[in-house]
Amino acid sequence: MFKMWKLFCKKCGFEGEEDKYYPFCPVCKSSLYIKGEKPKFNSILGEGNTPSVKENINGYEVYFKMEYLNPTGSFKDRGVSYSLQLASSLKYKCAVEDSSGNTGISTAAYSSRLGLKSKIVIPKTAPQGKKALLKSLNAEIIESNTRDEASLIAEDLSRSCFYVSHARNPFFIEGMKSIAKEIEKIKPRGVIIPSSSFSLFLGTYYGLKEIGINAKMFAVQGIETASLKEFIDPIYESKGKESKLADGLALKKSPRGEDAIKALKESNGGLIVLDDDEIKLGLKKLWQMGYMVEPTSATSYIALIRLIELNYDVNDYVLMLTGNGLKFYDLIEKIL
Amino acid sequence: MFKMWKLFCKKCGFEGEEDKYYPFCPVCKSSLYIKGEKPKFNSILGEGNTPSVKENINGYEVYFKMEYLNPTGSFKDRGVSYSLQLASSLKYKCAVEDSSGNTGISTAAYSSRLGLKSKIVIPKTAPQGKKALLKSLNAEIIESNTRDEASLIAEDLSRSCFYVSHARNPFFIEGMKSIAKEIEKIKPRGVIIPSSSFSLFLGTYYGLKEIGINAKMFAVQGIETASLKEFIDPIYESKGKESKLADGLALKKSPRGEDAIKALKESNGGLIVLDDDEIKLGLKKLWQMGYMVEPTSATSYIALIRLIELNYDVNDYVLMLTGNGLKFYDLIEKIL
Repeated sequence: MFKMWKLFCKKCGFEGEEDKYYPFCPVCKSSLYIKGEKPKFNSILGEGNTPSVKENINGYEVYFKMEYLNPTGSFKDRGVSYSLQLASSLKYKCAVEDSSGNTGISTAAYSSRLGLKSKIVIPKTAPQGKKALLKSLNAEIIESNTRDEASLIAEDLSRSCFYVSHARNPFFIEGMKSIAKEIEKIKPRGVIIPSSSFSLFLGTYYGLKEIGINAKMFAVQGIETASLKEFIDPIYESKGKESKLADGLALKKSPRGEDAIKALKESNGGLIVLDDDEIKLGLKKLWQMGYMVEPTSATSYIALIRLIELNYDVNDYVLMLTGNGLKFYDLIEKIL
Repeated sequence: MFKMWKLFCKKCGFEGEEDKYYPFCPVCKSSLYIKGEKPKFNSILGEGNTPSVKENINGYEVYFKMEYLNPTGSFKDRGVSYSLQLASSLKYKCAVEDSSGNTGISTAAYSSRLGLKSKIVIPKTAPQGKKALLKSLNAEIIESNTRDEASLIAEDLSRSCFYVSHARNPFFIEGMKSIAKEIEKIKPRGVIIPSSSFSLFLGTYYGLKEIGINAKMFAVQGIETASLKEFIDPIYESKGKESKLADGLALKKSPRGEDAIKALKESNGGLIVLDDDEIKLGLKKLWQMGYMVEPTSATSYIALIRLIELNYDVNDYVLMLTGNGLKFYDLIEKIL
């Protein structure tokens, strides 16, 4: 096989074999980085090229990037498509992921598409509807007692299957970068992104930098899981204690936290931390505008409003709407 | 107001007032036609420009048009957006539609977006999840005893509200035409469309003709509701008796049947009639390929396979995937 790339660890110095995939550092479990020439892959199921809708919000012209209109209903399709095309090219026969949410669904769909067997590890308590969806996509569902146990099971399965590992796998971020070219024309001055694993956050940031665009990067997190707060003070923080509605922002600690802080500081952006009351408010407003998003996406909208109140000039800001609310249609009504 | 267009009836000769909307002929209840200059409207919520994915099916190059990735999850957004922008420009304050399916959801979302009140008339027996979705979009839900009663209630409400009336309103077809430019590059030789009201079928046909493309038009219908069979023999028909899975093809009689037959014959296309067993087969295959569509959309795929078996050269055919399966995620598993 032609030698093109290597994965390496910035934390402990580990360097992988040429063209060999590691879902995380086998020595210290950190997220990895790529050196060499990265493989190129195309859209296979229509992922990417989602609509950007120009909106006038309180007198500002902003753009809503409808990532929830990706094939399986979230931005994750970009990273999953790239990662699993890589898995195919490396002759893997199966894929594993620990997620009952958007990444799990996307992994199941793209695995099925590419002829890989998928194993999705989810907590026993995951909603029945999600399990049904995964089964419809031919996934093997493996139930764990806790979220942490799910990760351990996935790590264990990674010895024989391609572990998508969206929070640590650097190829996942490579897949995300495709979004930058799609917002290039807007010349975004700022980007607002609900962020937990930072794959979309860093993919957008690196992608924009590669095409010479500097935009302020704003990460939005739930108040219960605001992993960036240990590194930086939020520019805005809600008063409540709960953020259970933002189930797409569940990671309490992100392996990519330091990279995210670097991007945020370099770009002169900021951290916004929201509670359920504000998320509910944002969800109500977005559905009223016709955007049928999942609750996590509503954090983008509230962040925008708070930035305006903090006197940011948000003209030409891009706001990411990350996940489709149709996956939750029975729950949305109860929230609103 | 500047005089631009008039609606008229080909059946009974009725001619409407200038720039006045009638959802159907007030004399004989037929579908109407437009004369004069048609208004132009833009995409307001990202509708349209859905992905076309090139697929190799049994050695043929065909294109899957992912209409289910429209904002509210179906192709109906094109016609609803156009119709309700017209309603706004005509100063209507409310919109009504009799549909618990894709048209109802789309009408609720675009009404909310445009500041119109929406009234959706649905049979009492409609699934709870659909009602929840409509409520989340601020629709007023009016329950009827039967499907026919729902139509009568909607017709009655049309005296004060804009009745979207997707099966008879000619502006709905105008909205659909936007799809033609999106598949122009493919130079489609044939188009396969699940068809009940024929809005997408006729919109695609007229739109393609306007840009000089002649494509064979294939309508796919459910065996219980194959309204075109009274005019033409199917080129393929399943052996079963039921087609309950294709709930998007429920109209037993279409006001646009004669126009559809004309398009079908002029274009040298055909009618394909399918039962639940075949729809189930198509759904399984599409989900396996990663297309998370609703059962109705699966009819396109089976129609394609049957055309190949009938020795049609289906190279550069376009196959419409009309509705998003996420709206049915709890039901799909039971079907597959």
